[in-house]
Amino acid sequence: MLVFLNGQFVPPARAVVPVNDRGFLYGDGLFETLRVAGGRPFRFAQYLQRLRRGADFLKMEVPFAARDLQEIAGRLIEQNRMPDAILRLTVTRGPGERGYTPKPGAPPTVVMTLHAAPAADTPASWRLVTSSFRVPAADPLSSIKTLNKLPHVLARIEAAEKGADEALLLNSRGEVAETAGGNLFWVDEGRPFTVPTACGALPGVTRAVVLEICQALGVPAGERIIKPDALQNVTGLFTTQSALGVVPVARLDGRPVPPSPLTDQIAGAYREMLAQP
Amino acid sequence: MLVFLNGQFVPPARAVVPVNDRGFLYGDGLFETLRVAGGRPFRFAQYLQRLRRGADFLKMEVPFAARDLQEIAGRLIEQNRMPDAILRLTVTRGPGERGYTPKPGAPPTVVMTLHAAPAADTPASWRLVTSSFRVPAADPLSSIKTLNKLPHVLARIEAAEKGADEALLLNSRGEVAETAGGNLFWVDEGRPFTVPTACGALPGVTRAVVLEICQALGVPAGERIIKPDALQNVTGLFTTQSALGVVPVARLDGRPVPPSPLTDQIAGAYREMLAQP
Repeated sequence: MLVFLNGQFVPPARAVVPVNDRGFLYGDGLFETLRVAGGRPFRFAQYLQRLRRGADFLKMEVPFAARDLQEIAGRLIEQNRMPDAILRLTVTRGPGERGYTPKPGAPPTVVMTLHAAPAADTPASWRLVTSSFRVPAADPLSSIKTLNKLPHVLARIEAAEKGADEALLLNSRGEVAETAGGNLFWVDEGRPFTVPTACGALPGVTRAVVLEICQALGVPAGERIIKPDALQNVTGLFTTQSALGVVPVARLDGRPVPPSPLTDQIAGAYREMLAQP
Repeated sequence: MLVFLNGQFVPPARAVVPVNDRGFLYGDGLFETLRVAGGRPFRFAQYLQRLRRGADFLKMEVPFAARDLQEIAGRLIEQNRMPDAILRLTVTRGPGERGYTPKPGAPPTVVMTLHAAPAADTPASWRLVTSSFRVPAADPLSSIKTLNKLPHVLARIEAAEKGADEALLLNSRGEVAETAGGNLFWVDEGRPFTVPTACGALPGVTRAVVLEICQALGVPAGERIIKPDALQNVTGLFTTQSALGVVPVARLDGRPVPPSPLTDQIAGAYREMLAQP
């Protein structure tokens, strides 16, 4: 499978970065993961906006314009014949000397890869468990998608050990923040809710799409801070994430979560949107 | 300059990792940086203990025993003829598929590199500025040296923009935690102090060596939580870090810090220890 690396399409054996790439040294970079459906990267422009915002925050350059990255993605999809896939775009501060302080002038590293679309045997609903790992509350780094993802990796390992599919991360104040791979929604008295991103949740593109869907369905979603205890009493719990879309949660910490017809409606609307040409 | 990579000594052009190395994808790994003096990696065993503790926490394997890593370091120093240098050891979870959950079985990536010893023109004392970036308080990840170092990178960029040499990071409770590259000590009424590592400070090996030195000098160092305001009234402020050892702080947020003879004594004892055969 061809990989886009710094201006070239290369075979996997040549898809390598030097060991002094700052992405490898310190996680000094950003990434985005999104769905490709019908040959088209879904909502690519929104992911690229977040990437650009992240790069501004890290004082890093993205050496390709959004239009160029879209064209590159198109060629990558075509050359690999993968119209239905997951696309990952990584941008790091590039090679550098040892030491936290970046030296100016190094060209950033840009990698774009395609991955198999979600397997058909992906569970239709998930077992979610609350993680012992927490994310900071009100940290500016929470609002961009950096390569510093150890809390999310560790939360997933812990969830897998408990036989669960996904982890729920609280923030340092003990409030619900996000799942390892996305955002969390629930239904309370017929209305959808999610937590404010200020709770330490990444502002997910799928989250934004679901907010649009709720608006269009005439049930605008609210933002509400919620403690894990209160989450035990909600219905229609679901996660949103780029790779898998809207995934209902069947069990939270082992206890069944009552479903809500609204969740199915939102999941259906999302699938339709993804399938649109 | 030769690089040790996964069992081989390779020239820089071959010192590369695949773009799907989890160190590059998610910062899913650990590193150690230490001083080589007189051909000998200083206190290597202590760094390797921290690495091992980190690997246990991340549920990762280190595929070489401490003795093997020490032998590899010796060969790297000899082959590169760099008896006075800085050594970096990186261990990641190795190549993997996209997705936070690690798949079992992938061999970890191990990289060992040598870097020029600190330049002779390194300032003898530092201008330190308080960073707007914070580290979590009481986070288990703070006690191991992971590849997730963006807060430290950003703090350094900010410090450089302010014309300073190093950044002071507070924790999420607003207490003094650490510097971007090390730990902080000060002298109060003739006695050295540092903050407890529970404040979010990495348990530095140079910090541990300085605690030993204080003991030997008959002035055992205390551990004390301190707010940035109180730091304005101390004397003999200094940082400890692996690459540069004990570095006095001349200015904190632009204000001169009164020196203490104890700082010079500790710095001298550290230099002697480093020079010991």
